Amino acid sequence: MPRPSVRRSSVRLSELGELGLLAELERQGLAERIADDAAQLGDGLVVTQDSLVEGVHFRFDRLSWRELGFRAAAVNISDLAASGARPETLLVSLGLPGETELDDVLSLYAGIAEAGVPVRGGDTTEAASVFVTVTAIGQADRVPGRSGALPGDKLVVTGPLGAAGAAFRARRYARPPVRVEEGIELARDAHAMLDLSDGLARDAGHIAARSACRLLIELDLVPLAPGATHEDLGFGEDYELLAATLDPGEFTVIGRCEPGSGVEIRLEGRPVALSGWEHFRLRETR
Amino acid sequence: MPRPSVRRSSVRLSELGELGLLAELERQGLAERIADDAAQLGDGLVVTQDSLVEGVHFRFDRLSWRELGFRAAAVNISDLAASGARPETLLVSLGLPGETELDDVLSLYAGIAEAGVPVRGGDTTEAASVFVTVTAIGQADRVPGRSGALPGDKLVVTGPLGAAGAAFRARRYARPPVRVEEGIELARDAHAMLDLSDGLARDAGHIAARSACRLLIELDLVPLAPGATHEDLGFGEDYELLAATLDPGEFTVIGRCEPGSGVEIRLEGRPVALSGWEHFRLRETR
Repeated sequence: MPRPSVRRSSVRLSELGELGLLAELERQGLAERIADDAAQLGDGLVVTQDSLVEGVHFRFDRLSWRELGFRAAAVNISDLAASGARPETLLVSLGLPGETELDDVLSLYAGIAEAGVPVRGGDTTEAASVFVTVTAIGQADRVPGRSGALPGDKLVVTGPLGAAGAAFRARRYARPPVRVEEGIELARDAHAMLDLSDGLARDAGHIAARSACRLLIELDLVPLAPGATHEDLGFGEDYELLAATLDPGEFTVIGRCEPGSGVEIRLEGRPVALSGWEHFRLRETR
Repeated sequence: MPRPSVRRSSVRLSELGELGLLAELERQGLAERIADDAAQLGDGLVVTQDSLVEGVHFRFDRLSWRELGFRAAAVNISDLAASGARPETLLVSLGLPGETELDDVLSLYAGIAEAGVPVRGGDTTEAASVFVTVTAIGQADRVPGRSGALPGDKLVVTGPLGAAGAAFRARRYARPPVRVEEGIELARDAHAMLDLSDGLARDAGHIAARSACRLLIELDLVPLAPGATHEDLGFGEDYELLAATLDPGEFTVIGRCEPGSGVEIRLEGRPVALSGWEHFRLRETR
């Protein structure tokens, strides 16, 4: 009878998913909290880094170079906003094919400049297809994080949702909002906060998984962007902030935290399912 | 007679080169000093960001996942070392095909961990081929920069050169050195400093272009790594530090700064040419 051969495990990222990979990296002590929106480095310093990849996050038939630049800056500034941080500096690393035209690169940087945070470093390199990695560095007085939501908290959002999903269906591009001032205001009191990039259900799940409570969201309370339906809330990329706080202020309450765990999403009082986005499982979810 | 049509310029990056692109971005005010090794953000904070791209900077038939991880960390830590900064934090963004195996990603992170600086953030995303963007963040008391070299300065290097070029010829991999302590020591007095990544001639040219002096290098004084020839000095990727200083200390003097501009490289008293590396002109220079 043949003995089982000794071989290394061959789990592929497409089976594991991005969250599974990040969990494994943390479990092995190889990285700290890289699933968080942004890292706190002491003295109020907050940094975040995200990449946009051609063919995965964008296609040039739907997005101009200028829009790509704005977007790459905005999604990182949004991560700082979700940390209640004021952005101060960007670093921009570009991978570009050699046949790229100078004017396109200048348009990309003009789009970055529109986001209003100066570029003070980075790298430019040859690559077979375009990628943009942006690091955003800022200062925060207080970072809510994801782990502090408590039963009794209200869940608030900083604006209407579903714009990105609706635009995607219409083969248009939705320019992400950048909620820096709103983030700083909410960060004063919020118990947990993040920006809605992965879809409402999944992002709420991030807070629930880290906090000691169950998040209950009433879809009837969620403000929808023009043309958006509830299905578009699963698409993600809205970049409005979601916060758990006792003090909603002027922001829209869409639910609450209760004792328990997990996320429940209700429409007219009945539980419903909303899918979300996860890298390496791209083709399953979109 | 036909009038010339109005059309936008179509200069391609492959014609312009990386330095031409960076100069144009600075000229238009779209980015500040992104050609520098690292950016100073006030309060002694120094940050740098570099990407390694499969097929451009590395091939997996010559470099293991673990070596890739160490290298991606080391080249960024080297940029901090060239700024006299002590590295404190890394952010790591990975682009990976979905069929990548978990064990390979864990090996990559193990290689990053070997460089000794904790990973505190980043991003993981799907991509058609592998890229690694690392941001290194550190603290420096004094950053020499590239613009302060003066006639009368000695040029010093922190170790033997040519190892990477010799290894490339032999289809081997040279593990880059990380000269953090040397960088901190040299930064106390050096008028200019950088790490040798683009090749001795080109990197010396960076100092000459920014400083008000001419750099004279005597190849006979340059310590060669085992198996290396003078031609390997043009390859770059040595990651030893080159500094212009009045106080060479224990480091090897390879030349001096004189009144004038540009770089002269001499072998046995006669001027010689050494080529170097520039992105987007890859195929011309290697």
